[in-house]
Amino acid sequence: MVINQKRLFHRLLEIGRIGMQEQGGITRLSYTKEEKEAKELLTYYMLDAGLEVRQDAVGNLIGRKEGGRSDAPVILTGSHFDTVPQGGMFDGVLGILAAIEVLQCMNEKRIETEHPIEVIAFVDEEGARFGFGMVGSRAISGKLRQEDLQFTDSQGIALAEAMRQAEFLPDNIADAAAESENIKAYIELHIEQGKVLENRNLPVGVVSGIAGHLWIDFRLIGESGHAGATPMKARRDPMTAAAKMISYIDEETKKYPNAVATIGKMSVLPGGVNVIPREVEFTIDLRDIDETVRNKIEENIVEYAQRICKEQNIELSLNTLQRVSPVKCSKAICDTIERACIETGQEIFTLISGAGHDGMQLKDFCPIGMIFIRSRGGVSHNADEWSSEDDCGVGADVLYHTILELAERV
Amino acid sequence: MVINQKRLFHRLLEIGRIGMQEQGGITRLSYTKEEKEAKELLTYYMLDAGLEVRQDAVGNLIGRKEGGRSDAPVILTGSHFDTVPQGGMFDGVLGILAAIEVLQCMNEKRIETEHPIEVIAFVDEEGARFGFGMVGSRAISGKLRQEDLQFTDSQGIALAEAMRQAEFLPDNIADAAAESENIKAYIELHIEQGKVLENRNLPVGVVSGIAGHLWIDFRLIGESGHAGATPMKARRDPMTAAAKMISYIDEETKKYPNAVATIGKMSVLPGGVNVIPREVEFTIDLRDIDETVRNKIEENIVEYAQRICKEQNIELSLNTLQRVSPVKCSKAICDTIERACIETGQEIFTLISGAGHDGMQLKDFCPIGMIFIRSRGGVSHNADEWSSEDDCGVGADVLYHTILELAERV
Repeated sequence: MVINQKRLFHRLLEIGRIGMQEQGGITRLSYTKEEKEAKELLTYYMLDAGLEVRQDAVGNLIGRKEGGRSDAPVILTGSHFDTVPQGGMFDGVLGILAAIEVLQCMNEKRIETEHPIEVIAFVDEEGARFGFGMVGSRAISGKLRQEDLQFTDSQGIALAEAMRQAEFLPDNIADAAAESENIKAYIELHIEQGKVLENRNLPVGVVSGIAGHLWIDFRLIGESGHAGATPMKARRDPMTAAAKMISYIDEETKKYPNAVATIGKMSVLPGGVNVIPREVEFTIDLRDIDETVRNKIEENIVEYAQRICKEQNIELSLNTLQRVSPVKCSKAICDTIERACIETGQEIFTLISGAGHDGMQLKDFCPIGMIFIRSRGGVSHNADEWSSEDDCGVGADVLYHTILELAERV
Repeated sequence: MVINQKRLFHRLLEIGRIGMQEQGGITRLSYTKEEKEAKELLTYYMLDAGLEVRQDAVGNLIGRKEGGRSDAPVILTGSHFDTVPQGGMFDGVLGILAAIEVLQCMNEKRIETEHPIEVIAFVDEEGARFGFGMVGSRAISGKLRQEDLQFTDSQGIALAEAMRQAEFLPDNIADAAAESENIKAYIELHIEQGKVLENRNLPVGVVSGIAGHLWIDFRLIGESGHAGATPMKARRDPMTAAAKMISYIDEETKKYPNAVATIGKMSVLPGGVNVIPREVEFTIDLRDIDETVRNKIEENIVEYAQRICKEQNIELSLNTLQRVSPVKCSKAICDTIERACIETGQEIFTLISGAGHDGMQLKDFCPIGMIFIRSRGGVSHNADEWSSEDDCGVGADVLYHTILELAERV
């Protein structure tokens, strides 16, 4: 093994203390003090690895190792450093720390490459705070728009305002965009967040594509009233309508083998035990590797929701928060990762990602590739998320050989 | 009409400004600064009416008009002054302000009675803050227990702690209890919160009994996980289980003509768009005028919930927050109210209360009676709650004659 697995794992544990919750898990939301603290630690690691560190206009942190031809397009590698509420200690940061480890090893061995290599730590991939997500990768690929900054958090703070509070100017977001021709490839190491590798007893896999996710916010408005004095027949209760929809979403999605649907957030207003709700709002996260299937499920769900609301005289507003198409990884990069697997003695195994990743935003911008490592029990977005030190080491080692080939050792 | 309807309505509007929300409605939760402000205003009205004002150990506010025989048992009349979140301006305070108006008129006319008369403003009937409710009436009837003070609000503040913050000593709650033999009757004027009087085109009605309400907290614990990478079959999702239960509750309750069930509160944790929830908690408010029917529905719901949770490998905890038996009003007091209706030229009409009231806690403590006035559209617990000035006046007038008879004019 080329890379220093102990150093990598020590850093995972160290950064995992930032945002750690008493009830378990790590909460490190975007543009918060926890995020800032994590960025300071990442800066320290990057400098220790001998990288040149800079921050872009939206807060992505970038560490650069110069190439032999400084005008050659960059090999970009990294991941995100935010978490979901009470999330795990591997999701995101592993890809950044492994990339730093790869470059630190290269520098320790005085290995030079033709292409410059940049480690990128993306802000807000999860979308946990603003219900939007992939902010850093959208910005890099020039896809972040001014209107996107209007998304608000649970306190009503808009993304634009949160940026300002973190000392980034919303007017300058376009400055974060890179030029497509300046990026040769984007490679990300990530935990699988599923059980496919575990079931196959493999530490590492080559990702062939990423399932697209669709996020829709459902807002149902009925009529509030007294729980005791309003007969069932006289009600316009958005809660019972929402319950029917959620049951339908569950049943409908289960008809398709690869589809998944999740209702992860719900608010019920005004929220009294003895008050019929006036308003129920919930989100759906719907995914499939086949966009046609996803569209079909979406269509059926929307049709059902509209019918139920019509029947019960409930006002329905749907707001598409994100619609991301499934993305194929670059064949050439997959081939490079496969050679890196052979080099490091790993079996070649290809799988699909059910989870979304920053690489999706780089579609049509630069070729992308991903390496997965095994997640214990497939558990993620959860305090029990775990990957062994050895698996982290194997993943980083495969990343090392992949990057070395792409960056062209001199 | 004996009472001063304009003064009464003016006071309703005035106190309705305390806790008024920008989004509409009034939020005046127990042991808050809004509650304190309302109590200050009520104190002012009571003093203006010539009453002797005191506060008891839990914060009930009491205004007394002395009787000819000061050892004669008290005629107690009033209602509560808290609201649900974004509630209406009549629910509760009408009964207090009408009682003050009644005594103010008696004092203005120098009318004396054998029995002392006390206006009581009860704290926390709604239970909106701690999910418990009827705190003041429980205390008066000696039913408030130390363990009840462990109920917490959405911020995790226990009732005991909230009392302390409002400068009441939780250790002293027993001091608020009255002696049963010292109370001759409890009479409450309240808005109907339903459409029965409106449909009959009547301003006022005599309440024969109060439907019992049952509040149960359902807590479902499953397993959190990544929304994209956890196949539907591998999930233990408490949200889909909760949705099924809510649909079942709705369908089951609709089988019985007088039963009502409401899911008014729900929390979903950890609450990320792309995170399968670990925990879903919701409350049910279930009522019927027939306790056997209510028990039957409860049994079916609990059985269904247990079955669903077993099937989906979800942990289920049920916590009964309140179980109140239906209560019959005193026949003698109903007869007195009927005579008051005749005296004031109102048609005698008897109805049941679907909503719970403080009088329920006084069951087996003293005879109770209630007068309802018409609610526009049956709307309550809502900014649109409305009763006309005339209907408020008629209700207070009926209350006046009822109290005068019960208190025995000298």
